[in-house]
Amino acid sequence: MLNKQPYKGTRDFFPHDKRILDYIFERMRCTAESFGYESYDGPLLEDIELYKAKSGEELINEQIYDFTDRGERHVAIRPEMTPTLARMVAQIHREYSKPLRWYSIPNLMRYEKPQKGRVREHWQFNCDIFGAPGRMGEVEILDIAISLLKSFGANSSQFEVLINDRQVIDVLFTKILKLNSEESTKMIKLIDRSKKLTPELLEKQIAEFLKENKSVTIFYDYLKLQNFEELFTFLDNHGHIEAVLNLKSIMTPLQALGLIEFIKFDPTIARGLDYYTGIVFEIFDKNPENRRAICGGGAYADLLKIFDEPSLPGVGLGLGDVTLLDFLKTHKLLPEKITQPHNDIQLCTDQADSINTLLSISDKLRKSGLKVIVSLDVVKFNKVFKDSEKNGADFVGLIGENEKNNCTIQIKEMKNRIQKEFKLNDINDLIIAIKKKSL
Amino acid sequence: MLNKQPYKGTRDFFPHDKRILDYIFERMRCTAESFGYESYDGPLLEDIELYKAKSGEELINEQIYDFTDRGERHVAIRPEMTPTLARMVAQIHREYSKPLRWYSIPNLMRYEKPQKGRVREHWQFNCDIFGAPGRMGEVEILDIAISLLKSFGANSSQFEVLINDRQVIDVLFTKILKLNSEESTKMIKLIDRSKKLTPELLEKQIAEFLKENKSVTIFYDYLKLQNFEELFTFLDNHGHIEAVLNLKSIMTPLQALGLIEFIKFDPTIARGLDYYTGIVFEIFDKNPENRRAICGGGAYADLLKIFDEPSLPGVGLGLGDVTLLDFLKTHKLLPEKITQPHNDIQLCTDQADSINTLLSISDKLRKSGLKVIVSLDVVKFNKVFKDSEKNGADFVGLIGENEKNNCTIQIKEMKNRIQKEFKLNDINDLIIAIKKKSL
Repeated sequence: MLNKQPYKGTRDFFPHDKRILDYIFERMRCTAESFGYESYDGPLLEDIELYKAKSGEELINEQIYDFTDRGERHVAIRPEMTPTLARMVAQIHREYSKPLRWYSIPNLMRYEKPQKGRVREHWQFNCDIFGAPGRMGEVEILDIAISLLKSFGANSSQFEVLINDRQVIDVLFTKILKLNSEESTKMIKLIDRSKKLTPELLEKQIAEFLKENKSVTIFYDYLKLQNFEELFTFLDNHGHIEAVLNLKSIMTPLQALGLIEFIKFDPTIARGLDYYTGIVFEIFDKNPENRRAICGGGAYADLLKIFDEPSLPGVGLGLGDVTLLDFLKTHKLLPEKITQPHNDIQLCTDQADSINTLLSISDKLRKSGLKVIVSLDVVKFNKVFKDSEKNGADFVGLIGENEKNNCTIQIKEMKNRIQKEFKLNDINDLIIAIKKKSL
Repeated sequence: MLNKQPYKGTRDFFPHDKRILDYIFERMRCTAESFGYESYDGPLLEDIELYKAKSGEELINEQIYDFTDRGERHVAIRPEMTPTLARMVAQIHREYSKPLRWYSIPNLMRYEKPQKGRVREHWQFNCDIFGAPGRMGEVEILDIAISLLKSFGANSSQFEVLINDRQVIDVLFTKILKLNSEESTKMIKLIDRSKKLTPELLEKQIAEFLKENKSVTIFYDYLKLQNFEELFTFLDNHGHIEAVLNLKSIMTPLQALGLIEFIKFDPTIARGLDYYTGIVFEIFDKNPENRRAICGGGAYADLLKIFDEPSLPGVGLGLGDVTLLDFLKTHKLLPEKITQPHNDIQLCTDQADSINTLLSISDKLRKSGLKVIVSLDVVKFNKVFKDSEKNGADFVGLIGENEKNNCTIQIKEMKNRIQKEFKLNDINDLIIAIKKKSL
């Protein structure tokens, strides 16, 4: 016998769950479009080389779904959207006026060990801006991320945006600690994991890369930095105040947008080995029970380089449906009614020869934009209302023997059980009543 | 250097193309929901066994994208949605009241030889009804398919619904021609391909299965049937008038819905080796230049059997985005404006210190639901309008030196270049003007 359960780590979306997903997709679309971002999409499969060139090692070695197709092409199911985006932008960026503002909500697959907040197939909201002046792209992407969460009713007591700058990290490692590029790369990985390590393990791993006591002290000083002021003082003390310019330049615009309350400097945000080159951020749930990143993003300068195209600076964000849903559930931000179906009217009859009349009415109602369920078999009127309630119908239309003979229909308003008879030869009155949701 | 082109047979959807796709998705959703259908979705990957149990041989042997995952599971990218749907319905059908009305618009992959109307990744609108009485599910699914095409403005001079009944085919082969079940299966395949074969090849293939001259004559008589009346006479002449009951019973309801003009009997519609057991149909473009099936579907009785569940009759349709788009383009049914972006207002300044003011205004306008593009750098006012036109902005807001000093903003209506000054401390007047699209 075949298994009824979905493939490990993936989800079946029954209507109840799909309505929730559609609700969050709709908020993503509205938010992106309110900033003038245009929707794009790309293929489910890409040449594996694209990911080898752009994605981190862990992803390629452990997480990607790759295989050889019937034509001997080595392909992969997209584990992230940015490489596809880069490929597409590389095709057309010369003809488009800048900045280019694009968004997408693709389904992505990674071979993860399924656990809370981690599945193998998820949807990810991606917003990217290319060719924005100065650090204004960073400001706009942060604005979009925060506006999306605010559109669900979330506030600064529930989430925070932890921010850092890869250029600060770069100055710390190459200029202040004088590491070479290989050591520096490994240290970025270490920063990324530092919060998850025990103090002993962290100490041990630091000792591998930093031989001098002085360097270790500086690195611990860095990890202890709590806010922008402390970072600025730290860099100033080490003679590299120029490294704060990026972070400083986004403060005034974020102030103008009323977003400063959400923003916090965090020395451990580094976004791994990804393509980021500038400001990077992760949005965290502030609830200690659900302490995880809901959204991540940052600035990248050289995404088109692998296509031999001139560099075009970009800033992007990625936000997955699973962690977002966990966040919304944790803070009770999902309205009850979105999980229920809604229809305008359900049409029923207890007369076998009136079903075709119902069909004809349903066609007229639908043409005026209404959502209409027809009971396709004769019904017992006393059983109709439970069914209509389940279908979320605002009204029920009934044709009994009298109505059949008089060419009329009884309409009942579900919320108050008020009832009114309408003539079938003038359906417009009925349409108006349904649309204003009152008989 | 990496290839900028998408994987063979797949498509990049740049904003211009994505807007067209979103437009047809929106029409699919609206149509399904106007019939009370609820949205569902399932995983991108399924156990290969699911398709082996339900899909045709050609699909498994030549078209499916299958591979072994890192945990040694043999999986496939979904080539169609019905097996997933069956798996999901098998899980929950006992708890749901009938009929169950579901729709989905998944992306699907098949290893096809790319050509006009055929790609490797496409989106398919799926609508299914389970547990409808009599043949009313068939009527409703046909109604949905036709309503969708009509919602694009298509009419009966542009498309037709070719219809047949697997039970008629069954009676023809097993009762009238007295073939065994293996021969019968092969003949269904032959029927399916009959229009594509030359008369000589058809004759040759028929001769393989039908040994007696009398049988050959009967089969040719069948293939020549032009309409329901001729079919009814044919069956009556062969003593099997009972086989017309299904087709007869959908005529009156289709009449009530005004759909008869779209419906035509076609003896060659059989829907291959699929899971169909009753009425089957394909919708064809009537334009001889684009003579292909836009949509196919039919009734199936035993979809849950492979899960050891009691049978639950269903009717479904599948309609792909590629053939639909070809149809809409052939008949010029895509409105020009859907390919253009639309925004409510674009905000600009030529004063560097006013960009933050623009950000603050943009936030207020977006909170009231408007689509706002901010020019993130100072602009030359004489160059703004070309850009705003490209962005499809209804209005342009400008802060020059005077406006900066007076705390105001000049608003220009793009379509007539009427201009009006608004105070920044009372942004509501501006919001009202933009919403009613007139200064």
